[in-house]
Amino acid sequence: MNPTIETLLSHRSIRKFSDRKIPRPLLETLVRAGQSAATSNHVQAYSIIHVVNPDNRAKVAELAGGQAYIAECSDFLVFCADMKRSTEAAERAGADVVRGMMEQLLVASVDTALMAQNMVVAAESEGLGICYIGGIRNNPAEVSELLHLPEHVYPVFGLCLGYPDQSPEVKPRLPIEAVLKEDYYQDAQDDPLVAAFDSTMRDYYHSRTGGTKDTNWSEQLKPLFTSKLRPHMSDFLKQRGFGLK
Amino acid sequence: MNPTIETLLSHRSIRKFSDRKIPRPLLETLVRAGQSAATSNHVQAYSIIHVVNPDNRAKVAELAGGQAYIAECSDFLVFCADMKRSTEAAERAGADVVRGMMEQLLVASVDTALMAQNMVVAAESEGLGICYIGGIRNNPAEVSELLHLPEHVYPVFGLCLGYPDQSPEVKPRLPIEAVLKEDYYQDAQDDPLVAAFDSTMRDYYHSRTGGTKDTNWSEQLKPLFTSKLRPHMSDFLKQRGFGLK
Repeated sequence: MNPTIETLLSHRSIRKFSDRKIPRPLLETLVRAGQSAATSNHVQAYSIIHVVNPDNRAKVAELAGGQAYIAECSDFLVFCADMKRSTEAAERAGADVVRGMMEQLLVASVDTALMAQNMVVAAESEGLGICYIGGIRNNPAEVSELLHLPEHVYPVFGLCLGYPDQSPEVKPRLPIEAVLKEDYYQDAQDDPLVAAFDSTMRDYYHSRTGGTKDTNWSEQLKPLFTSKLRPHMSDFLKQRGFGLK
Repeated sequence: MNPTIETLLSHRSIRKFSDRKIPRPLLETLVRAGQSAATSNHVQAYSIIHVVNPDNRAKVAELAGGQAYIAECSDFLVFCADMKRSTEAAERAGADVVRGMMEQLLVASVDTALMAQNMVVAAESEGLGICYIGGIRNNPAEVSELLHLPEHVYPVFGLCLGYPDQSPEVKPRLPIEAVLKEDYYQDAQDDPLVAAFDSTMRDYYHSRTGGTKDTNWSEQLKPLFTSKLRPHMSDFLKQRGFGLK
């Protein structure tokens, strides 16, 4: 197994960081590695806001759920899907641009994720730790106002970057058979695989907590599809010019 | 610079593959590397359809735009955002699950992209070439029918994998200053950066085509925001149970 694949397989989120700062040249190398990811039709539909000002950092941390590591990590980035730059470039070149299409929301969100993941891999290959912050979508309008995000730009997720001050276990993943399907989506075989994974996760939580946490994957998912649904996202996106047409 | 970052920085899409096949154990290692990516609340909202049957491969290739490399590469995968597995697991555990929320579409699309990009990095670290196929969204209903995708699962993009039989140049990216912004989205500075990038891309197209292709980034984007908008995506997603609420 080559070192790159070893890096990928040993990923776990880091939520406790040392005081050591990431040198600016390394941060820029990470961004360049991110930009090297594939991008739909070369559109590069993303911008990163590097939240440096301590007041801004504290406010973003609060808006995203108040996790201490957002304020404590060396660098905190907000990854934005950006349809402004490219549509305006096409407009200046004479195109009669259409905006607010679902396809554009998908392209920009996927482009942003591919670029972020490349940055994450680059960061981990340099010994850094990371944690994605989906909580940035808890209060996306307030985050957008704070960071002066214009129309056709929306914050997809945040990212904590820094030198790890903890070494958690790698968290198990679904059996490969549940994820990789041959020719057709066969969900009949998924139920036993999910049951097996529930058992794996129960053991994982047990061993990590000295037996005090008695739960599994399915149980842990329950609040996700009720209380964590972020029902404002649809209206928020429409207000920001992502029309969902 | 470490070998992982070198791999990331040297990415370019491959559209011509040799006849050599990827060994199954390597394919599985790539999928495991993909699964190791961060996932929102551990939901792992993705499935991969490995299109093996030659008739299916030919049909998917045609539906995605007819590019020969979809049929010719060693392995072709369709990456699906999958909200079925996890919502059903939560339901079996007793949750009163809500579906059809915009937040779920975003989570599943981003999860799928993070996992795919990890697979891509793993593949390139092993000397393989890749090409993402956004054309899978040209006819998503027909692709879904062919691959028996159930409700709450949608095809986000395809991926060609194989041993390269070409060595194209790395394509330039936007200046880092356009993408990485300090504290606030400052778009006033973007126009000259886009103009500089247009000039970079004009030189790139010139040198690649012996002077016959006279265009730039902004010009190349024009059809994207008019003819390539895939206006069916919104209705398609709603029909598949992604309600956009």
